[in-house]
Parts: sequence; C-alpha cells; structure tokens
Amino acid sequence: MFMLGNFLTLSTFGESHGPAFGGIISNFPAGLKVDFDEIQYQLDRRKPAQSKIVTQRKESDIVKFLSGIFEGKTLGTPIGFIIENENQKSKDYEHLKSVYRPSHADFTYDQKFGIRDYRGGGKSSARETVNWVVAGALAKQILPKNVKINAYVSSVGEIFCEKPYQSLDFSKIESYEIRCPDEETAKKMISKIKKIKKDGNTIGGTITCVIKNLPIGIGEPIFGKLQAELAKAMLSINAVKGFEYGSGFCGAKMTGKEHNDIFNEDFSTKTNLSGGILGGISNGTDVYFRIAFKPVATILQPQKSVDKFGKSVVVEGKGRHDACVLPRAVPIVENLAAFVLADLFLINEVRRKAQDKND
Amino acid sequence: MFMLGNFLTLSTFGESHGPAFGGIISNFPAGLKVDFDEIQYQLDRRKPAQSKIVTQRKESDIVKFLSGIFEGKTLGTPIGFIIENENQKSKDYEHLKSVYRPSHADFTYDQKFGIRDYRGGGKSSARETVNWVVAGALAKQILPKNVKINAYVSSVGEIFCEKPYQSLDFSKIESYEIRCPDEETAKKMISKIKKIKKDGNTIGGTITCVIKNLPIGIGEPIFGKLQAELAKAMLSINAVKGFEYGSGFCGAKMTGKEHNDIFNEDFSTKTNLSGGILGGISNGTDVYFRIAFKPVATILQPQKSVDKFGKSVVVEGKGRHDACVLPRAVPIVENLAAFVLADLFLINEVRRKAQDKND
Amino acid sequence: MFMLGNFLTLSTFGESHGPAFGGIISNFPAGLKVDFDEIQYQLDRRKPAQSKIVTQRKESDIVKFLSGIFEGKTLGTPIGFIIENENQKSKDYEHLKSVYRPSHADFTYDQKFGIRDYRGGGKSSARETVNWVVAGALAKQILPKNVKINAYVSSVGEIFCEKPYQSLDFSKIESYEIRCPDEETAKKMISKIKKIKKDGNTIGGTITCVIKNLPIGIGEPIFGKLQAELAKAMLSINAVKGFEYGSGFCGAKMTGKEHNDIFNEDFSTKTNLSGGILGGISNGTDVYFRIAFKPVATILQPQKSVDKFGKSVVVEGKGRHDACVLPRAVPIVENLAAFVLADLFLINEVRRKAQDKND
Amino acid sequence: MFMLGNFLTLSTFGESHGPAFGGIISNFPAGLKVDFDEIQYQLDRRKPAQSKIVTQRKESDIVKFLSGIFEGKTLGTPIGFIIENENQKSKDYEHLKSVYRPSHADFTYDQKFGIRDYRGGGKSSARETVNWVVAGALAKQILPKNVKINAYVSSVGEIFCEKPYQSLDFSKIESYEIRCPDEETAKKMISKIKKIKKDGNTIGGTITCVIKNLPIGIGEPIFGKLQAELAKAMLSINAVKGFEYGSGFCGAKMTGKEHNDIFNEDFSTKTNLSGGILGGISNGTDVYFRIAFKPVATILQPQKSVDKFGKSVVVEGKGRHDACVLPRAVPIVENLAAFVLADLFLINEVRRKAQDKND
Repeated sequence: MFMLGNFLTLSTFGESHGPAFGGIISNFPAGLKVDFDEIQYQLDRRKPAQSKIVTQRKESDIVKFLSGIFEGKTLGTPIGFIIENENQKSKDYEHLKSVYRPSHADFTYDQKFGIRDYRGGGKSSARETVNWVVAGALAKQILPKNVKINAYVSSVGEIFCEKPYQSLDFSKIESYEIRCPDEETAKKMISKIKKIKKDGNTIGGTITCVIKNLPIGIGEPIFGKLQAELAKAMLSINAVKGFEYGSGFCGAKMTGKEHNDIFNEDFSTKTNLSGGILGGISNGTDVYFRIAFKPVATILQPQKSVDKFGKSVVVEGKGRHDACVLPRAVPIVENLAAFVLADLFLINEVRRKAQDKND
Repeated sequence: MFMLGNFLTLSTFGESHGPAFGGIISNFPAGLKVDFDEIQYQLDRRKPAQSKIVTQRKESDIVKFLSGIFEGKTLGTPIGFIIENENQKSKDYEHLKSVYRPSHADFTYDQKFGIRDYRGGGKSSARETVNWVVAGALAKQILPKNVKINAYVSSVGEIFCEKPYQSLDFSKIESYEIRCPDEETAKKMISKIKKIKKDGNTIGGTITCVIKNLPIGIGEPIFGKLQAELAKAMLSINAVKGFEYGSGFCGAKMTGKEHNDIFNEDFSTKTNLSGGILGGISNGTDVYFRIAFKPVATILQPQKSVDKFGKSVVVEGKGRHDACVLPRAVPIVENLAAFVLADLFLINEVRRKAQDKND
Repeated sequence: MFMLGNFLTLSTFGESHGPAFGGIISNFPAGLKVDFDEIQYQLDRRKPAQSKIVTQRKESDIVKFLSGIFEGKTLGTPIGFIIENENQKSKDYEHLKSVYRPSHADFTYDQKFGIRDYRGGGKSSARETVNWVVAGALAKQILPKNVKINAYVSSVGEIFCEKPYQSLDFSKIESYEIRCPDEETAKKMISKIKKIKKDGNTIGGTITCVIKNLPIGIGEPIFGKLQAELAKAMLSINAVKGFEYGSGFCGAKMTGKEHNDIFNEDFSTKTNLSGGILGGISNGTDVYFRIAFKPVATILQPQKSVDKFGKSVVVEGKGRHDACVLPRAVPIVENLAAFVLADLFLINEVRRKAQDKND
Repeated sequence: MFMLGNFLTLSTFGESHGPAFGGIISNFPAGLKVDFDEIQYQLDRRKPAQSKIVTQRKESDIVKFLSGIFEGKTLGTPIGFIIENENQKSKDYEHLKSVYRPSHADFTYDQKFGIRDYRGGGKSSARETVNWVVAGALAKQILPKNVKINAYVSSVGEIFCEKPYQSLDFSKIESYEIRCPDEETAKKMISKIKKIKKDGNTIGGTITCVIKNLPIGIGEPIFGKLQAELAKAMLSINAVKGFEYGSGFCGAKMTGKEHNDIFNEDFSTKTNLSGGILGGISNGTDVYFRIAFKPVATILQPQKSVDKFGKSVVVEGKGRHDACVLPRAVPIVENLAAFVLADLFLINEVRRKAQDKND
C-alpha cells in the first residue's frame, strides 16, 4: 500500500534532516549484472551544486546497497539501499518549529499527523526523489537495451522550446546546464533563471519526456493503464501540477477526424497524437508526455505568513535554494518513468509467458 | 493489484457485448443506510440517449446489488453488483474481427493478449465506467455530507467557459444538456456539437471538477498524494489525455512570488493556486482539477485503416455513437473522484483514530 | 487487500441467502482454452446432496461466467462469475435474528459490524467456498498438465487412515462417498458418520493433500513462502483449526540427524520430511500437508445459548446440515491449493523470464 | 506484494553476511511515544549468546531508526531501520559455494534464482527475524496496553509441558533459559538440549502463544481471518512445520456436541475450544495457538550430501550453531503475532470509526 509499482515495488523512507534516505526494491529479477556507474551518474545529475543555476548546497549523494546484490549481480531478493544525509545537524531549525511557510506542507502535515519534523522539509522534502533516482536507474536495466528514455526542459516561465521533440537532438540535453537540447532556447532559459535567482525569486516550467522503442503491449487495460501509472508517478513529484500525454490538452480542441492516427500497413501510424498508447497499452510508437512544475515555494524574499497559533509572521527563505528546479528534475522524471515501465514490463512478461505455454 | 482504491477497493469486470458488467467493493464500512436513488440517478446521468446531443443507443443501466447490503444497510462485507448488458447479441460484429480501427485499442489488445473480444469495444469499451459510477455513488455516501463534488464541461473544442469556477452557479449544471452551468457558453457548445454530429465527426473538450468542504488531511505524503490518486483515476478514463490541478500548466509560467498562497490568520489562504492540496494532503480549501478529453475515435465517415494482416481497408463507424462524450463524462468524473476521496478519507480515519488513542 | 492470491487474485462476494455468490479473477493469462466441464465437475464434488452422508440440501451450483472468456478462451481480462443461490427466500429466519448460536460467528459479526445478515450463515456461510472451487478449478488449468493435486480424508474422529499416502491409490478417492481411498478405513468412516448423523451430532476430521510434479522454484523467500501461502489459504476455510506440512508436528519431536533429508546425486532426496519445500521454495519432490477440521457447529440437538441481550435461550439446528463436512471439503482443499500454486507459478514465471533475458 | 501486514506493513531486506538487515514500516500511526527500551529488550531476548543453551555467536543486534521518529515520537511517515551485521567478512565461505547442505535452501535458491549468496544462510538465514522483532516490538505499542502476548516453549523433542496454559505462571517464562514457565519441565528440557548439543545434534519442539484481552472484532471475514493471518506469519518462520489454534488437531477428533463453546450470559463462553476466534474474528476470550519447529538442519556431525554438479560430498557444520532454536524463537513468535494483531487492529478501527459517523 502506497508504494511505487505493482509487481516491481519500491518502498521508501527518509526525512531531509534525519540520518538517511533509503528504500527497498522488491521482486527485482535475479542474475542481472548491475551497472553501478549508471546509477551514480543519474544521482549526480540530480545532485545539488552541479551547476551555477541550481542550489549550491553540498551533498555527495552516494548510494550504498545493503542487500540483494552479490558479486555485482542481483540475487532476486529485496534490494535495500540508503543514501546518507550529510550535515543534517548543522543548522538550527527552532525558528521554523511553529511557523507555517506559504505553499509548503507545514500546515497540512501538522493537521494530519498532529506532529511534524520541522527541520527543513522533513518528510515533505523533495530529497525523497533521491530514492526514486536510485530505484529507477536500477529498474531501467531490466528494460530491453534499445528502450531510450529522454526528458528535457521544454519551458521555463514564458520561454518555450517551440520545436517539436522530433526535431531536437537529445544527445545535446546534457550540453546545457538547463537540460534543454536547443541551444538558443537553453541560453534564454539560463539567463532568465539567473535573473530570477538574483531577485531571490523562483520560477516554474515544463519537462517533456520521450520514450522510444518501448515494446508493444506495456500497460494494463483498466486500472493499470500505462498513462495512468505514469501520471500517478509524475504527480508524486512535489512541484508537479499537471500531466498530459500525446495530444494532451491540445487534443481536447480537436475533432475525431483530425485526431485519429491512421495506420500504415506495417502497423505504424501516420501521426502519433495518441502518444504511443491505445487502450492503456503501448503500441510501439513513441510514448511522450509533458509535465508542469510550479515554481519552488521557498523564495529569498520576505513573505507574510502565520504561525501554528494563527499569529501573523514574516518568513524569508535563507541559504541555498533552487531558483528553478527543472534541470535537476530531468533525471527524476526519466528514472521515475523507467521504474514505471520496468514494473509494467515485468507484468507483461507473465502474460506473454503464459501464452507461450499454450502454443 | 490493478484495482481502484487502496483500502476501499473496487475490482471490476465486463465486456461491452458480454452478459454484464459488474464489480466488487471491498472494505466498505458497515451500517451505512444506502441511498439507492442517488446511485440510480448517477447512472441515469451517465446513460446513453438521455438527451439529443449524446448517443441514442438504448440501455436501461439498472444496477443489481448481489451482496453486502441487507435491509437497506451495508453489512461491512464485500458489495457485489452487476449491470446487465442489453441486446448484446443483436449485432453482427464479424466484419470487425480482423479490422484495426484507427485510434482504438484493437491493435494493442491483439498484440498484448493474442486474442480479443472484437464485438464492439469488448473490454476496452467505455461502458466499463458504468461500474465506476455505481461504486463512486456509493462511496460518496461515506464522506461527510457537506463535501460537495461538482464537475462541469469547461470547454468543447475551441469554445471555452472563460469564467472562473467561483463565479459559476453549480446548481445550473443539470440545466443544460451539455452540463456547462453558464448559459451562453452552454448554448454555443450545444450548437457546436450538433454541427459536428451532422458531419459524422466528433469533438473533444475539458471537464473541470471542484470539491468543496473536503476535510483537512486527506491524502498521503509520498506515494498516495491526493493529486496523484486523482490523476491516476482520471487518466483511467478512456479518452482522457491530460490532468492538471490548481494552477496546473499555467502555474509553470509563474514565479514563486506570484504563485505562493499567503495564509490568513484562520489558516485559509488569500489565493488557491495550490488547488487545495499541499504536500499531497488536502488543506481545507477547494480542491479543483481539469481534465482533457480527446475526441471520440469512432466517426461516421470513411477512414483508411488496416486489418490484422496489414492489408489496407476502409472503416466507417455506423449507428449510434457519441459526437461528444463530455456531458456523459461529467458524472463519471464526479463519482470517480468520490471513490478516490472516500478511500483516502477512510485511510485518514485510521490515522486519526490511532492518534486519539495516544491522547 | 484481503483477496486470495498476490498476482493472480480472486475477490469474492456473497451471503448464503442473498441472490448470488460470485467473484472476479484478475491477471489470468490470455488465450487459455477453458475446460468448463472440469470446473463444473469440481463444483459437483463440493455440492450438497451428492451422497447420503452429506447434507441433503438441494443446490444446483451452476457457475455463469460473465466476462473474460470469449469463444471458449480466456481474454486476459478480469473473469467475472456468479453462482446463483436457489430458494434463498423460502425460509423464515426471523427466529435467528437475535440469537447467538454456539461456536458460530453470529456474536462476532454483530460486535464487529454492528449489523449482520442473520439469514442462515449470511456472510460467514461456508457456501463462500463455492467461489473458491470455481476459481481454483480454473487456475489449475494454468499449471503444467503433469502437476497432480490430490486430497483425501485421512481421519474422521478417532478413525485414522494409518497408511502413508505413498501406499494409497489416489484413483480410488472418488470410489467411496467419504473420499478416503483406503476401502477398509473408508467403510469405518462412513459407518461412523451415519451413527453421528442419526444422533443429530457432527464430527471433525483431517484431510491430507499431496501435490506431485510441482516444478522446482515455486514460492518466494520471505513473506511469500509456499507453506505460508498454503497455510493462509487453508486456515481461511471456516472449520479448519490446524495446518502442518512435511513432518509437521511430528517433526517437532525429532533430532536434526533424523529429520534432515539426504540428497541423492540427482538432487532428489532419500526422505521427504521437508514436505517438498526448502526455504519456502518447492524442491521438486512431493509437497504434502494435512489440515484439521473441527466438527460442524450446527447440531440437531437442543443446546443452551444466549440472545443478543444476554438472555438464555435454547437453540436447536433444524433441517439439512452436514454431520461431517470432510468429504465435501476435499474438492475445496484441492482447488484452493491449485489457486495458491497457480498464483506463485505465474510469479515465478516473471523471475524466470527475466533471467532468460540476461542470458 | 510479499510484505508482512495489509495496512500496517513491513518490507524487509538483508542477507546474513551482507552489511545489514533492515526494513520499512508503513502506515504506522503518528504521535506515539516510542518505548525504545522495549524494542531493544525484545532484540536481546532473540540475540545469540544470551544463555548457555543457545549459539555462542556474538552479535550485538542494535537497531538504528533512520526515519519516521522525531523527538521520540512517531511522525506517521515510513519508519526505516537497520541492524548492522558484525564480522560479516571474517569467515571464508568459499567451501560452501557449490555445496548443497541437507534440508537447507541452497538447492532451491540456486534453482529458482540461478544465483545465491552462499555465505552462510544468505537470504534464507533466520537472521531475517531480527527485522520482525523490531517491527513487532514497535507495533505492539499500537495495541491497547492491557493486551498481553505471551509465548513459551511447550515441548522440546518428546518432553512436553503437560499442564494447560491456564495453570502456568507466565511471569516465570524468563526465569529459565529455555523459556518454559514450568520449572520441572524447563529443567528436563534444558538437560535434554545440553545432551543433544554435546552430540553435535539438534532438536525440535513446539511453542504455545497466548493472547489475552484482545478486543472483540479483530480479523476480517473471508481472506483476512485472524487465524489465517497468524498462520501465514508463523509459517514464514524458517523452521516452522505446523500451526494449530484453539482445539487444533485434537478438535478434529471431537464431535460438535463436545466442541461447541456454550455462551454465558455475559457473552463469555464456558469453554474455549474455538481459540478465541469465531468466523475469523476475535470474540474477546483468549486467542491461543501452537506451532511446531523442526530441528535445526545444521548439525556438527558429518553428513552425506551433494554439490551443485551432483557429486557426492560430506558436509559437517562447524562453529557456533543452535542445538535448539526454541528459546530464541519465543520473542520472534510474540513480536510477529503483535505485528499481525496491530495490523488487523488498525483496519478494524476504520470499520468502527465509520460506524460512529452513522450514529
């Protein structure tokens, strides 16, 4: 209950200022040679202080695997891992104990649980996503090698990457610290973020994710539709306010005649407004989706707020926060998608295997 | 696995041309006096042929409860129900046996399962939602009586209801067959649909759903966030291509300073760009979201397609289909949302009850 | 939650005097040609009035499949089914409304739910097992054809079948209405039950179940051990008070030297005190277990009891009840075991399939 | 999937010679003041080398909580914990790499997964139960304080504690290193184990567990019966071969007239052959069950076996192993039972809460 995945599952724990984050991955297949460098690489892409436009907070974010891997291969048994928090005791958070910061989870946690870890984000910290990157980077290794999952920043504020994803060169995503592969747009975005940062403000944006070469048949008909599983995962990321796939909200303006994807004789389609999914099941064309991130709530400006007694207070973010979370969210989106796909991929294997038996 | 809900769960079955749809609701609380009229009323709102702008197919859609309710009250045991299909044998579907209709699930089902019920939509039929309406209309009765869930059609094609939901009179939603409470917009939408229908074409649109008076504390911190559970449920509806809540995709264009909802001294907020959810948990203000529906794939015009052997064919929808599924989708959205809320509400009750004990 | 199975799942519903029992089987593999006769045969073995030593109540117990099967083959989509109750309104149960029968669930249901269906067993009726037989008889068809699951009555009261299962001829189980394959023991058991029945009394007994040719590798290491899944399923049968497998309670008297199963060079073992399971996983030898059934609580003699107000009453079973439930429980045990095995078999297929990929 | 519990869940990880064991407890109620001493006390009761009749292996077994607890109270968020393994690298296990020890899981793990951690027990090690003790000792704190869970060794080999549990003084369980509260029996058991140990042999036995003051209503009607959940948990312990509750296997020899528990006017019963559970739900009287442990498979004598190539080998246990696992299993049984009860207790709270609403 309340895990990521249905067969391949991830349970997680961790508060931002506790000793560690971590998780357990269950039902991971046995005998897979783990590419540890890939996992660490994904963690590094998510890490703070990797470039000038993200938070300068220092965390080394090294994952330690505690079980389920032996002599470099998966055992088929639960994979436990932790990522230790560093310097978690160094700050004094007493002043946040009874303050409710605007658009943070302080108020709702207190109301729901009657208690909260008030040190930084506590449980509501986006640092939780460090767990997802580990699990997703590992799960990706279950998928056929030709499956390619690429996410990129498709807008920052009002600056949009207007080109369709088909005309972008994904090999350039890492070339710009904003992780938008279009040079001109990337530069505009970076300069926008620098300005926003100087103001002590923050800004939102969108990420587009494209999955190529996904086998046909991934996703389940009713309550395990591929798009529903992806949406659920993406809406679990703290700042995400929306999800659309294929034609998305634009599709709602169209007529059936315009929207239908006509088949070619090899079962590919002339268009792909469906976003690679029909009836909840992948059809072999590109799966693509776009998600909206609101601006980070912590701003380095004074804001009016209240404390837990309903008394007016002024809060002001201090220290090293992201002015724009988008570049660091790119690996989160990719690896989270990988986990969702690996789960549904394994489930689909049962269906296929059972069919083999009938032949 | 692959059910709706986490504690309060719905499992369903049914193909469009089999004998019946139906489901089992588990962990429904005992001793609740069931309002059967409300359930049938919601089914009637979803029913075909209820107005001139929807399909004229005839189905009476009467639910039969087979267990879990005794002398008008719930027993606390699983609630089994069925909705019989009518005239399911009347048509000849042989001609669809090997045809893949554009933007339908024919191809993906065949590829995934190696077999499909080719009569009409089979398992991929939107008639599945009849189960969700029954379960949701029942689940709604678990929620505190003052919780109000209202959905309405907020756009059809390019016609948008420009007024914010706060200025609409929800008591007028049922006044127009399109289920948009703004008279002027409703009329435009209806005339648009009539035109589209005459052309044998179909059209998409959006539905906005507003939940008022939801208690604080609904939703779970990490993998059971309220928005994620809602998104997953909504993306399970066949034609849905997108979900956004609160500021949604617009929020991605904003800065933190603009987007943050400033607290009043009574813990209400001056704005509600958060959409009533902070950290995945309801904060007592309105929860609202918007979902995009693509146009129905079946159009009454000839379209090129292929059969299962990859041979070119021409398909043409016949008979009684929806030119715009939006008005009938309104009760689906509302009742599906109700089920999601009731599930998370019960889960939150455990947490609260356990806290009481500690006092 | 609270279903049978982990991947292949069964949800059920039904009260003894409601309109029907039924269930939904999810994640059943697609494309399997269903042997309907086998399912009905198993239902007939469980049916009342099949012989003189069981209840003479008449129920035809015909299963109707409502979805998931098309042209005789499984679709891979949820399989819904119902078994209608007959004559469920014929009796007057008013007199049971406030009476708590000894060793029945009347009292605990009332306390837990604050309400109960007092007509006969209501939800606590063993008629629920009709669902399990349908699901199990279907699930058995997923298993490799050479897997053989045989249960038999190994004791009635103090009468034990002293021969080890290896020396019994399972083809004779159906030869005697008591379903013990040893003629001499069977006759003693039958005559004992006839005597008990004449007295208006009831009697307990044990069933032994033997699974041959189960593939190696079925069962999961920690919380999905094969023996734990079997135990849980068996303890779900109303009258079951105990479960043991392999050496069972006798094994608790032994030393390690006596108990260890020494390997042959072909990995078979010289003895099988382990009961075919090591570390929760099948090892290719016979899996066998034994379960204890208490005597049926309803006796046709007056017994002192209380009503819901705590007032003394006298209750006396009337009509047609089983004096010994064991012969009818044999198919329940076999088919329930089949479901457990099919679930774990499918889960193991994922693991194997995933390994293939690595080769 | 494959966790302990249904609402309150425990996921675990760990191999005997990896860096650590650990787990995540989800849905634990918020605001509970944790009694850490109690948890460590239970770990100490399970620890090796606590007395002369158990293994002299040294492990300090200190639990570290990594999340979910703040300033001594539970946060309502997932509780992560680890227990580090000590000296896990000190031994050379190369010689076990290709050997299959009799009645160990070496063979089945290799067959199922195609790989295994051959260092000691690896994943199949009973050290996994250290996780269960932590989780159970914490879960017990959710239950009403007057609920008492006491387990004791009721037999070792052929030596039985003949007295019924009602006549035993549970406060003496800890008085004897064997954890049988009857002095005379305890002494016989201890001397038996000493003899067995000297022989390099091992011996089995049974544990009886008694739960007093459990509230009425715990357990669910069909697939979550209290006895089924307890059986599943107990059969998850490595060496357990059988489970019986109430009258158990003896009940199978009785008639209904003898077995029925007659109500008193206060709803207590004159006898308790039911074992405190009716229809899967606790009835307020003592819940008691008995479980059978086979002798430990590792004996300090040479035994014939095979290696993975099917070649004959001789294996001989070395070092510090338990001659009788029973005394150390007592806290495992108690704390595992506590977890099962706490899970079902929380689930029952929802049902009750919903009823309150109706009043």
